[in-house]
Amino acid sequence: MADTENPSTSDHLRDALDGPWRAVRAEARVQLAGDQFTGDPYLDYHAARARVLEQMRAIASMGYAERGFRRENGGTGEPGEAVVGLEMLAYADLSLWVKSGVQWGLFGGAVENLGTERHRDVVKRLISLDLLGCFAMTESGHGSDVANLETTATYDPQSQEFVVHSPTPSARKDYIGGAAEHAGMAAVFAQLITEGTSQGVHCFLVPIRDEHGADLPGVTTYDDGLKGGLLGVDNGRIVFDQVRIPRENLLNRYADVAPDGTYSSDIENPSRRFFTTLGTLVRGRVSVGGAAAAGARVALSIATRYALKRRQFSDPDSGQETLLLDYRSHQRRLLPLIARSYALAFAQNDLVRRMHLVQTGQDLDPGAQRALEKRAAGLKVAQTGFATRAIQECREACGGAGYLTENRLVTLKADTDVFTTFEGDNVVLTQLVAKELLTAYSDEIRDLDALGWVRFAATMAGDVVRKRSGVRQLIQTLRDRSDDTVDDGDLSRRSVQLQLFADREDYLVRTAGYRLRARAKDTAPFEAFNNAQDHILAAGAAHIDRLILEAFIEGIAGIADPEARELAETVCDLYVYSLLEENQAWFIMHRFMSVERAKAVRRGVNELVDRLRPDALTLVEGMGVPESMLRAALLDDASVFDRISSRTSV
Amino acid sequence: MADTENPSTSDHLRDALDGPWRAVRAEARVQLAGDQFTGDPYLDYHAARARVLEQMRAIASMGYAERGFRRENGGTGEPGEAVVGLEMLAYADLSLWVKSGVQWGLFGGAVENLGTERHRDVVKRLISLDLLGCFAMTESGHGSDVANLETTATYDPQSQEFVVHSPTPSARKDYIGGAAEHAGMAAVFAQLITEGTSQGVHCFLVPIRDEHGADLPGVTTYDDGLKGGLLGVDNGRIVFDQVRIPRENLLNRYADVAPDGTYSSDIENPSRRFFTTLGTLVRGRVSVGGAAAAGARVALSIATRYALKRRQFSDPDSGQETLLLDYRSHQRRLLPLIARSYALAFAQNDLVRRMHLVQTGQDLDPGAQRALEKRAAGLKVAQTGFATRAIQECREACGGAGYLTENRLVTLKADTDVFTTFEGDNVVLTQLVAKELLTAYSDEIRDLDALGWVRFAATMAGDVVRKRSGVRQLIQTLRDRSDDTVDDGDLSRRSVQLQLFADREDYLVRTAGYRLRARAKDTAPFEAFNNAQDHILAAGAAHIDRLILEAFIEGIAGIADPEARELAETVCDLYVYSLLEENQAWFIMHRFMSVERAKAVRRGVNELVDRLRPDALTLVEGMGVPESMLRAALLDDASVFDRISSRTSV
Repeated sequence: MADTENPSTSDHLRDALDGPWRAVRAEARVQLAGDQFTGDPYLDYHAARARVLEQMRAIASMGYAERGFRRENGGTGEPGEAVVGLEMLAYADLSLWVKSGVQWGLFGGAVENLGTERHRDVVKRLISLDLLGCFAMTESGHGSDVANLETTATYDPQSQEFVVHSPTPSARKDYIGGAAEHAGMAAVFAQLITEGTSQGVHCFLVPIRDEHGADLPGVTTYDDGLKGGLLGVDNGRIVFDQVRIPRENLLNRYADVAPDGTYSSDIENPSRRFFTTLGTLVRGRVSVGGAAAAGARVALSIATRYALKRRQFSDPDSGQETLLLDYRSHQRRLLPLIARSYALAFAQNDLVRRMHLVQTGQDLDPGAQRALEKRAAGLKVAQTGFATRAIQECREACGGAGYLTENRLVTLKADTDVFTTFEGDNVVLTQLVAKELLTAYSDEIRDLDALGWVRFAATMAGDVVRKRSGVRQLIQTLRDRSDDTVDDGDLSRRSVQLQLFADREDYLVRTAGYRLRARAKDTAPFEAFNNAQDHILAAGAAHIDRLILEAFIEGIAGIADPEARELAETVCDLYVYSLLEENQAWFIMHRFMSVERAKAVRRGVNELVDRLRPDALTLVEGMGVPESMLRAALLDDASVFDRISSRTSV
Repeated sequence: MADTENPSTSDHLRDALDGPWRAVRAEARVQLAGDQFTGDPYLDYHAARARVLEQMRAIASMGYAERGFRRENGGTGEPGEAVVGLEMLAYADLSLWVKSGVQWGLFGGAVENLGTERHRDVVKRLISLDLLGCFAMTESGHGSDVANLETTATYDPQSQEFVVHSPTPSARKDYIGGAAEHAGMAAVFAQLITEGTSQGVHCFLVPIRDEHGADLPGVTTYDDGLKGGLLGVDNGRIVFDQVRIPRENLLNRYADVAPDGTYSSDIENPSRRFFTTLGTLVRGRVSVGGAAAAGARVALSIATRYALKRRQFSDPDSGQETLLLDYRSHQRRLLPLIARSYALAFAQNDLVRRMHLVQTGQDLDPGAQRALEKRAAGLKVAQTGFATRAIQECREACGGAGYLTENRLVTLKADTDVFTTFEGDNVVLTQLVAKELLTAYSDEIRDLDALGWVRFAATMAGDVVRKRSGVRQLIQTLRDRSDDTVDDGDLSRRSVQLQLFADREDYLVRTAGYRLRARAKDTAPFEAFNNAQDHILAAGAAHIDRLILEAFIEGIAGIADPEARELAETVCDLYVYSLLEENQAWFIMHRFMSVERAKAVRRGVNELVDRLRPDALTLVEGMGVPESMLRAALLDDASVFDRISSRTSV
């Protein structure tokens, strides 16, 4: 497809969307194209899990695993490559992506980032799949509220062991990928208790199965059974009954327990210790968002290519049947989603780049880690929510064919469905983003309970929004670029668009703060917070939208080819206009947009889908999912497209 | 649960929602409650299909099938009972509902309504399941565009047979429930050709399998294999190669071919004949909407009951963890969906009642059939679109637990997903509704191609909207009831609400007409239509919204118990406010709502969810899905709810 001598417009677009690790993507497109890495929906779920495990061995042998680990642990130390390489698995099969992500991302990441040199051997063994692990954080009773996990790990100085225990039914570890069948070891998050004192949540390595796959003494595993999708992932439950592990199995990077039971940590503040621990796991959220967006690109590629072949109902003007993508309603269904897909791809590249710089020690800004966490949370929300919506729309846009498993859309939908939940429920994460905005990252805020948080936010919000973001500067740069002498409010100008996004964010953050303050005076803190919750969530969402637009703008700036760049600019306009259209009630109600301008936005969306219609295939190719990886039978099914060209009609 | 001596508020609500055939529903709740009628997601799909077939035999023995057929055909002649009775199967398992619907609704309905006395024996055999059938309308090349089906049935006067044939790859019948395994006979829609002339689409009975299940000569069936859901339904493909059937196998209610090949019909106009034929099949659309809404009620019952048990994050005010349903965001997620569920239940009852009157000859208004078709199409769109959205929201609202098959939400989502497509794609149906509005049901319009239609619509639209609807009268009645002397525009008044809905519909229909007219002057007809397509679809959607609100209002009027009635009024307010909120950009932009009023709408939604929160369980019980039919493991899983009440927190 790609002619390296004479790259086409779609080649240029793909190159831009491939981002800093484009070489990894290019290699993966070749390596992963075969039948070997696809899922087989006809397998029994035990067989499907076994198949994925075999696929992982092939993936490991091709070097996908090492990238995520430091050299001293047997890796190559390229976290950006690791995330991008594994993301490409999502084009082949999302079960393969999830199970690989559990092994090397979550389990591996926990040992790599929370362990020390004494856990080096574990890392080496998990890279090679000599050791299969799982990441046992979530419990049946607590998923979002990690700080209140109930599993305990109580230190026994007599034997120099921790005793891992599930004290209540709700302490049961649940939904744990790998726990049902394959994992021999679990990275268990539990309340560390020593010398009679709980020190909060820490992570421990707990062997759970012997070499024959039988539960070890005190460990009982259960199979979560069938799920909405992800047939090849063996999610399960673990209950611990006084399971003893050596003292050294505490992953002791941030805290340790001496043989006599003395607890020590370099991070004195328990809350900061907790968040530092969780913060090292940010790669999971970065990855989930990326994989969800990749799944959406596959679905959009299938649905758009179908709409470029499938005809229905005669067009009296031409006498021919009309291509689906020539209907206005179908253009409005798919093209804005493609535009958002472009936006998210640029935003994800930017996020991975930032993550890479932080995790390789190249970004030493003290706030960088925390900013990264917020951005990762926000983009996880945006990308997973988008995937759910976009894949659903693609299924419907392919009609009955879209419902057949052989056409892959239903599997994509089912597999990605839980992405809005795992690695942080999207509502909870949006709230997390908003809280950071409202409190301007104040360090002390993470210590506060809801009471303190509401009081704090009420005093802080509003003054800080614009100061800390580079958005003003970017708006000025855009104005300079386009030689605008005055800002006349022309909505087609990027600076005006970005200003609108920033205005919405600022206003929502500021007013959420006022609202909390007003409420905090006369109601209990939870009620004050809860009454403003929809407002707070809107502030978080507006922030995420603005970040994505900025990333899109920066991404376009990196496209050298003028034709590709112009096309990307139009795609960006469609992203902006369709987002403004979705939120136009808000913009009008808060006087950021006149009614006339709102009507122009609606017309603008129609004009933009018209303008982009001829480039639909170019845009699909630019998204970078190779045709060989689409694997949707309908695209090659002559029965769906070939017909006698003229027929009598009633 | 229900104490017949002292009915509770939820009993009264359930009674109201149960509608005219409440006795059928009450009986079904008892009959269908056992394990016998549930699906088993762990079965291989062949076994799942066999299981459903066995379940159908039990259903048939309980009299569910006879209701839909006339006495002379061996039935009891109660179409309303038939639709409602089968709808109750959806609470147990949607595969059972679909496969039953194919047999008795689609296949049975075709023979019953398009056949004559010579097909009586077929009807009797299909009622008892002595004969299994399928409904072979859709082809791989044509689903929405039924008039252009490619399968031919060519009459051969020599042998007095029709020759059924698939002349092209795209003529293959596809997605046909029953075609993969069980059906022995197909009701095949094909172009009837006799004496060298095509007479348009007619329906023929074609035996496809022998008693051993082998394809008959000239028939080749294929299995569509796995789908997004509906594991127990054997969808497949059929290709005909010059298959000969007796002349008498034409379902000849509206047209016949004499032994010598002479074609005759009481309906001279071929277009009217075609639409009369399709019109008799309206029960399918009525049923699909009802079953989708039933699936949504199951999901909402599960998610809301879960939200009333599941806690997460401590509330500093109480020291306890907070119930999910006490969060504003969760209330906003679920309660407006419950309100819409109530609205749709009333609308569905009204629709079934109208269908029953038409189909039992009690409504002799010449326009009644056509009005019924439009209403059925509109409510099919509303209910199936709602089910897709609501069940998705319920899955997400139950987090990781929602993703486990044992908690049923993913199965409900997967099974109902195709409901937006089958029995008419929702976009196409919305357009059908809008076209009827724009052309005021003019009879000639159905003959017109796009060219003629656009020209016609341009002249008609606008003048007729208000005249033909009873909405003015209802608004006046509402004003009288509430003793409003003046209409002061108070949004809490039902008359004002309904006026807003009617204004939106009128405006959209009228302006769509103007827009077509303006365009028709200077562009080709398809382009004129296509440029206004989003506008036309909005007009259809607004009409559907208004019909549903009217049905809600009428439904409430039938509730005698004052407490239940007052609660239903609040639920209706929430339905109205949340719908106004969704469309507030439109209302503001078209000057039907001031910015201040729009803000009041948003506050109103918050106030209403607050007010309804204490009644959440009552509302769930009122929806009428018995607890015994929910079958979601999480509702009885102590691990999800029981925990030590206080714990140290970091």
